[in-house]
Amino acid sequence: MTAPTIDLNADAGESFGRWTLGDDEALFRHITTANIACGYHAGDPATMRSSLIRAREAGIAAGAHPGYPDLLGFGRRALPATDSDVVDYILYQVGALAGLAAAENVPLTHVKPHGALMGRICRSPELAATVARSLQAVLPGVPLMFAPTEAMRAVAAAGLPVIPENAADLDFDQDGINIVEPVPRTKDPEAVADRALEMARGTVRTVGGTMIPMPVRSVCVHGDRPNAVAVAAAVRRRLESAGFLLCAPGQAL
Amino acid sequence: MTAPTIDLNADAGESFGRWTLGDDEALFRHITTANIACGYHAGDPATMRSSLIRAREAGIAAGAHPGYPDLLGFGRRALPATDSDVVDYILYQVGALAGLAAAENVPLTHVKPHGALMGRICRSPELAATVARSLQAVLPGVPLMFAPTEAMRAVAAAGLPVIPENAADLDFDQDGINIVEPVPRTKDPEAVADRALEMARGTVRTVGGTMIPMPVRSVCVHGDRPNAVAVAAAVRRRLESAGFLLCAPGQAL
Amino acid sequence: MTAPTIDLNADAGESFGRWTLGDDEALFRHITTANIACGYHAGDPATMRSSLIRAREAGIAAGAHPGYPDLLGFGRRALPATDSDVVDYILYQVGALAGLAAAENVPLTHVKPHGALMGRICRSPELAATVARSLQAVLPGVPLMFAPTEAMRAVAAAGLPVIPENAADLDFDQDGINIVEPVPRTKDPEAVADRALEMARGTVRTVGGTMIPMPVRSVCVHGDRPNAVAVAAAVRRRLESAGFLLCAPGQAL
Amino acid sequence: MTAPTIDLNADAGESFGRWTLGDDEALFRHITTANIACGYHAGDPATMRSSLIRAREAGIAAGAHPGYPDLLGFGRRALPATDSDVVDYILYQVGALAGLAAAENVPLTHVKPHGALMGRICRSPELAATVARSLQAVLPGVPLMFAPTEAMRAVAAAGLPVIPENAADLDFDQDGINIVEPVPRTKDPEAVADRALEMARGTVRTVGGTMIPMPVRSVCVHGDRPNAVAVAAAVRRRLESAGFLLCAPGQAL
Repeated sequence: MTAPTIDLNADAGESFGRWTLGDDEALFRHITTANIACGYHAGDPATMRSSLIRAREAGIAAGAHPGYPDLLGFGRRALPATDSDVVDYILYQVGALAGLAAAENVPLTHVKPHGALMGRICRSPELAATVARSLQAVLPGVPLMFAPTEAMRAVAAAGLPVIPENAADLDFDQDGINIVEPVPRTKDPEAVADRALEMARGTVRTVGGTMIPMPVRSVCVHGDRPNAVAVAAAVRRRLESAGFLLCAPGQAL
Repeated sequence: MTAPTIDLNADAGESFGRWTLGDDEALFRHITTANIACGYHAGDPATMRSSLIRAREAGIAAGAHPGYPDLLGFGRRALPATDSDVVDYILYQVGALAGLAAAENVPLTHVKPHGALMGRICRSPELAATVARSLQAVLPGVPLMFAPTEAMRAVAAAGLPVIPENAADLDFDQDGINIVEPVPRTKDPEAVADRALEMARGTVRTVGGTMIPMPVRSVCVHGDRPNAVAVAAAVRRRLESAGFLLCAPGQAL
Repeated sequence: MTAPTIDLNADAGESFGRWTLGDDEALFRHITTANIACGYHAGDPATMRSSLIRAREAGIAAGAHPGYPDLLGFGRRALPATDSDVVDYILYQVGALAGLAAAENVPLTHVKPHGALMGRICRSPELAATVARSLQAVLPGVPLMFAPTEAMRAVAAAGLPVIPENAADLDFDQDGINIVEPVPRTKDPEAVADRALEMARGTVRTVGGTMIPMPVRSVCVHGDRPNAVAVAAAVRRRLESAGFLLCAPGQAL
Repeated sequence: MTAPTIDLNADAGESFGRWTLGDDEALFRHITTANIACGYHAGDPATMRSSLIRAREAGIAAGAHPGYPDLLGFGRRALPATDSDVVDYILYQVGALAGLAAAENVPLTHVKPHGALMGRICRSPELAATVARSLQAVLPGVPLMFAPTEAMRAVAAAGLPVIPENAADLDFDQDGINIVEPVPRTKDPEAVADRALEMARGTVRTVGGTMIPMPVRSVCVHGDRPNAVAVAAAVRRRLESAGFLLCAPGQAL
């Protein structure tokens, strides 16, 4: 009998120039997929290249993590850009990372929107489908990674590849939507691990106490949380103890 | 007997957000190759996409025109970045344009560095070869377009594709190097056309009055010159009158 | 008997680096007050200084025109910044212009928020009062210039200086709010002049055809409209023909 | 008999948006003067305001720390801007900080250029004098803080206020110029304290081993050094043990 698989993803490469955010080197020992910032909300060309190298050396999957062009707001403010601009912002950033990834011979495995841009796409089935379709021209076969929503189902229904994911280190409202923190705080690693295991098994408890379905192939922990490494390590241990094989979606056997 | 060929290139897509620079629509009726700005010195995702569409509709070649990350200085200030940063700035921007070009199904034909970044690469054979080699991973077979220099010969000697070019709307110093204007001014279209024809025939007169070899496959006119369209039209008429077939390098028959 | 007075203001200094927007030199011959962009949505230090010099030479009033930090969107996108950030964005930009104005010995006469930032302040009496109060610390006695709204009345009720203004080159909805264009288009100068005269007399017709009170001390025309200079000239002629003395609020005798 | 005085300054407020750099809260317990970044190389309006508040609460002097507009390069790359642009970059940033400082009722005590901009000014007596003179219009009486150089003597000779300072946590070349690190590394606090005491006494040992005059009124430690707080604490202890009274120049009794 084959072990069930689950992916553990984290946002990475979120340093910028002189500023360091997160400890990617330590984090990459625990996660199986890195979402690499592409220069709009965080990241810069040198950081992107070193993040790709680090992912390759850690043997983990690497994908693009495009955000709104708002370095000052770290992509966490909902910029009222047009749908057309949103698509172009994503293609620009995904292409930019693909350029550096080609030079390092690192295949990009997925695209996961960041912050407020993720929120925007999750709320619009049409935009989500347009984004997913546009990505196929740039990275054929590469899935969009995002939350199980109406929007995600629209993408899948259009025959476009998706990876359902959600964050284990955030609470869920009654609609199954992650409740975003303005700035990530330290959290109890074991509590996050509890929720990650629920999610790996297909359900999650909302803040109201209800268990709801949460059919994800990947669980996320935020790399810019102060104790992100401890959280990722706890999640990994818990999932492995419960019999899960941790691997990126494309690496499933 | 086949007509000799020459390419007429211009920098394009140099608008940014609310600001328009150049009249690309009119310009593209005269030139055969457009170098599209990639967001660092000019250009933004929407402008990049519309420039790609415009090039396709005009039936001209489109390539990347990466610059230093200096929007305020329009990429015309020599930022003392490291060689490694220069390579990454180029890969980032070329990849970004390639992402949008893939979505529009426009093949990128070449990469021509912009402004002070071009000057930097022309002065360093090692950096030029590194840039040209790195580009092959992103856009296999796609040439670097730049001035006939020691650096260009180093790239060619390494077996990497190049397109020799130089600007017909700038003067040449005694070493055959274009003398850059701080801001392009109106110029006599016929005088530029005279020089373009010299260059198409393989020579050019320096400011000192000497004729020197200038073996280019492409001549450039600057799209942000106030009378850029008139200059491009005059150059094209002169070259065609002299029996040249205007076509982009990859389109030569 | 004294002639009634009215101010004609326009946004100015909205060039950025290599990009020019508007023809301030011509525009300043017709207007009496210039609102100078401060680097966040448009403008840069050199442009700010030259705009101050130009205002001084034209003998017109000069004030600050702060916007959201969104060069790409020209400050016309409603960035969901916090109230606290909004106040700090304004103080930063007003201070920056005041620094250059001090060097040129140009007194700043007012502060008029730009684009989406103006919209934000007009909709929040509390934020408007906080902004107006904060400005008094930086530029004592200097008024906030904005539209007659509940927010403006809150500022005035707090004893803080205001200049009521509205745009004559935009339509008004039934609530007396300017209907913003995504990008300013060419407009009939005489039609704008008609409305400017209505406004100078204290009323305006809405798109629904109703005449409503519009008690402004200043009417605005947008400097980035393609025929901005013709519009400003027509407005000025009309107002002067009707017996108004055009002068900035602080210059009224 | 009065104790000799010395000032201990550090660059501060160098966080940006989501990114934190340095531990200003701890640092401010040891230093007497904070140089606050103004948004071009680091800092943002909210960070600037909180840095001003923190300086006030710590009872230390606060001044402006303007840099080149190069967030990606943290102002440590020598941007070839014109002298005129350099002056305007400084006035813009100083004014911006002054705007926030006015709102917080914090007097600005000095202006110290950052990184490559400091290097530029130290090498040009003319530019230094122009900068110092321009500052008098914005902040009358406020001194320029920089290294004892020909440029500083030119400023003083012009009757403009200066505070001679240099970094105790960097080596000195034979010309008495600080040797800049690309990125500050951890350093031995006691070794830095040794040098700070030498400097407080008016001399310093170069890397060649020669003792040279170094008549400073302020010694600097870099706030973005990994062990900046320990270094500052050691310097302060050493200076106080040797009988120096630590105080900002304007606070000297």
